[in-house]
Amino acid sequence: MKVGICGFGTVGSGTLKVLARNQKDIAARAGGPIVVTRIASRTPPADDVDLNGASFSVDVQSVIQAPDVDVVVETIGGTTIAREVILGAIAAGKHVVTANKALIAEHGAEIFEAAEQAGVTVAYEAAVAGGIPVIKAMREGLVANRIEWLAGIINGTGNFILTEMGEKNRDFEDVLKEAQALGYAEADPTFDVEGIDAAHKLTILASTAFGVPLQFSGAYTEGISQITVQDMAYAQELGYQIKHLGIARRLDNGFELRVHPTLVPESHLIASVNGVMNAVLVNGDAVGQTLYYGAGAGSEATASAVIADLVDIARTARQDARSGVPHLGFASEHLSEEPVVPIEDIQSAYYLRMLAEDRPGVLARVATLLSEHGINIESIMQKESELADGRIPLIMLTHTVREADLNHAVAAIEKLPEICGHVFRIRVEHF
Amino acid sequence: MKVGICGFGTVGSGTLKVLARNQKDIAARAGGPIVVTRIASRTPPADDVDLNGASFSVDVQSVIQAPDVDVVVETIGGTTIAREVILGAIAAGKHVVTANKALIAEHGAEIFEAAEQAGVTVAYEAAVAGGIPVIKAMREGLVANRIEWLAGIINGTGNFILTEMGEKNRDFEDVLKEAQALGYAEADPTFDVEGIDAAHKLTILASTAFGVPLQFSGAYTEGISQITVQDMAYAQELGYQIKHLGIARRLDNGFELRVHPTLVPESHLIASVNGVMNAVLVNGDAVGQTLYYGAGAGSEATASAVIADLVDIARTARQDARSGVPHLGFASEHLSEEPVVPIEDIQSAYYLRMLAEDRPGVLARVATLLSEHGINIESIMQKESELADGRIPLIMLTHTVREADLNHAVAAIEKLPEICGHVFRIRVEHF
Repeated sequence: MKVGICGFGTVGSGTLKVLARNQKDIAARAGGPIVVTRIASRTPPADDVDLNGASFSVDVQSVIQAPDVDVVVETIGGTTIAREVILGAIAAGKHVVTANKALIAEHGAEIFEAAEQAGVTVAYEAAVAGGIPVIKAMREGLVANRIEWLAGIINGTGNFILTEMGEKNRDFEDVLKEAQALGYAEADPTFDVEGIDAAHKLTILASTAFGVPLQFSGAYTEGISQITVQDMAYAQELGYQIKHLGIARRLDNGFELRVHPTLVPESHLIASVNGVMNAVLVNGDAVGQTLYYGAGAGSEATASAVIADLVDIARTARQDARSGVPHLGFASEHLSEEPVVPIEDIQSAYYLRMLAEDRPGVLARVATLLSEHGINIESIMQKESELADGRIPLIMLTHTVREADLNHAVAAIEKLPEICGHVFRIRVEHF
Repeated sequence: MKVGICGFGTVGSGTLKVLARNQKDIAARAGGPIVVTRIASRTPPADDVDLNGASFSVDVQSVIQAPDVDVVVETIGGTTIAREVILGAIAAGKHVVTANKALIAEHGAEIFEAAEQAGVTVAYEAAVAGGIPVIKAMREGLVANRIEWLAGIINGTGNFILTEMGEKNRDFEDVLKEAQALGYAEADPTFDVEGIDAAHKLTILASTAFGVPLQFSGAYTEGISQITVQDMAYAQELGYQIKHLGIARRLDNGFELRVHPTLVPESHLIASVNGVMNAVLVNGDAVGQTLYYGAGAGSEATASAVIADLVDIARTARQDARSGVPHLGFASEHLSEEPVVPIEDIQSAYYLRMLAEDRPGVLARVATLLSEHGINIESIMQKESELADGRIPLIMLTHTVREADLNHAVAAIEKLPEICGHVFRIRVEHF
């Protein structure tokens, strides 16, 4: 099988390298050699880069139109040129393998439809959680199950920052600077720390889980930049860790699709997923909870997923692409039309942190307001004042409540004269 | 696609139940309905069992020879009748799905060869780690990688016992009785607690990892019945948990295949896999460490894997079976002939526990003997005597050493007059 690579950055070059290094084993597994014949990229590679016999061009057309390319690997990134390259490759009758989560989450419907009409495959294992074969688990390994919900640590940068904050008592800004220096975070970290990257991946996971069209625009995102080291410490005192999770869950009237900081019980395996590592927890009605853990990014880890897709295509090459695994795991005519549920309608427990005047009766007034909104309190911590002005932090865990009710209660609490500023909240999940 | 089930116990009945409950979603994923037409079992089902339209017989031939059966699901267990059923089904041109780890580990070569000659598929996801799609990860998801090693908690009974011992300070025998009462352990628990069941699964994992023939007879097994609550406590004091692991690792001269109690650092994710849950940790040269976690047994969890195999077969039904995924992930003509390395040749660190007379110089003499055999000590604990006779436990962690050298050192230590009885050892792995 002959492969053309478009985009020759971290993932593209990793793919070439791993294909070359393990070519013998890969051929034994795929039923024949997989060879990179052509590479295209905006910037030519340095002179000392071994292209392993592939030709190089700055023109992507020379790859996607080439007769000696059966499969196009797209590792350009972004949603403009990458989209044109993929649609062009499909039109030219090539199979496509991509690591592009933004493109699949935002334009997957268009791309899959084009692929199905052309009778080619678009594979995207590398788009979610790097080298962890979680798309394969969703589309194939767990097909017996009605997937009830899934939750993932699917942004390594964010998990690195939260882990450092929790273990070493360091501020968000401080760790972010280190993450940037280490190359884990971009100069503009918005995509990672505000949850947009995670929402792209979650959108894809949810569609493969529930058999619904890709609906990135419906995803709720909340970042980690407001989390303090105090929150990490309080959470640990309560028996929790704070993780930035993407959560998708079936409801009677649709499904949840949300990315936000979350308290998870420290006894749960997912609370021990630290540093840049990713993990996806999937709950199926037959299998129960399963978890998939590994590196969510990196040159060779992502290449591992790209090559797995190439081998899948090679193994089924003699077959009509339409008879294999459907793009989202469900046949496209069977995708359901369930809507994403607005964040106000989700049910969750909450961690609340507020600053109060150190006067008698404050706690009682807050508790009464919560109770009037139908919210039960699981635990309360009143901390010693750490500030010169004598204001004290109040920390509470609520029982499960509808988010809209919590919002009303919080608005009422914020109007109390003894409460200073905003009530800070983090959702809590017990898996 | 029409399915016949042979053996209607826990797994067979779970398969029927999940196929019926989720039939709509499964059809949408498989590209068409999957229907159980026939069931055979030694004992007829109770009158109130809904067979969902399938016919029942006590004669397996009525299933494997039936024209209205495309795939035979074998959930009989054991290596005698099950082997005949599978070979008979293959001879009759049926695809086969099995949950039978013993059969695949011991007779897989014969079965796969028959299948390849007949042009049918034998799928066995359910044979390893229940509902966790780890065989799929090995055969498909990680194909880009040269797998360096893998380590698994692949026997839920053993993990339940060790977890209870470690968390609740309970003796092995005590927890074993509870496990038997709960139905986690058989009346004769040998297969589980002595590591034979884990060795079956490890044998299968190793072949899919390394592309070697199934070599169950070469596996080294050591059980958990000798582990004491003191060992659990000492290990925790040293920063470790004791887990019963199956480990397979490539070496220059072959590969390791061993099941034994193992100290693992408590900071590693696999140390947090508790109770009856299973997990497999796989290290590939491109992807690094990945981990797959979930229920390793149970009716519906195992059915989840059986049905995943059925859907794979349905999705590729229009295709020549030989062009799909090879049985062990590598094309059979490319399986390598590397041998299993004898346990004496493995390299490992060791936890050593011995009972010594409380006299000056004992520690020094033991340390000297270890040093003379080229063994370096990482840490030593000398515990207070807990026994009336004044003998004291000595606990040590060694650095990595060849097992044969450790054996010689241990033999020499056991000859010291101050050392009472045998030196107890547990291997240590830093993943």
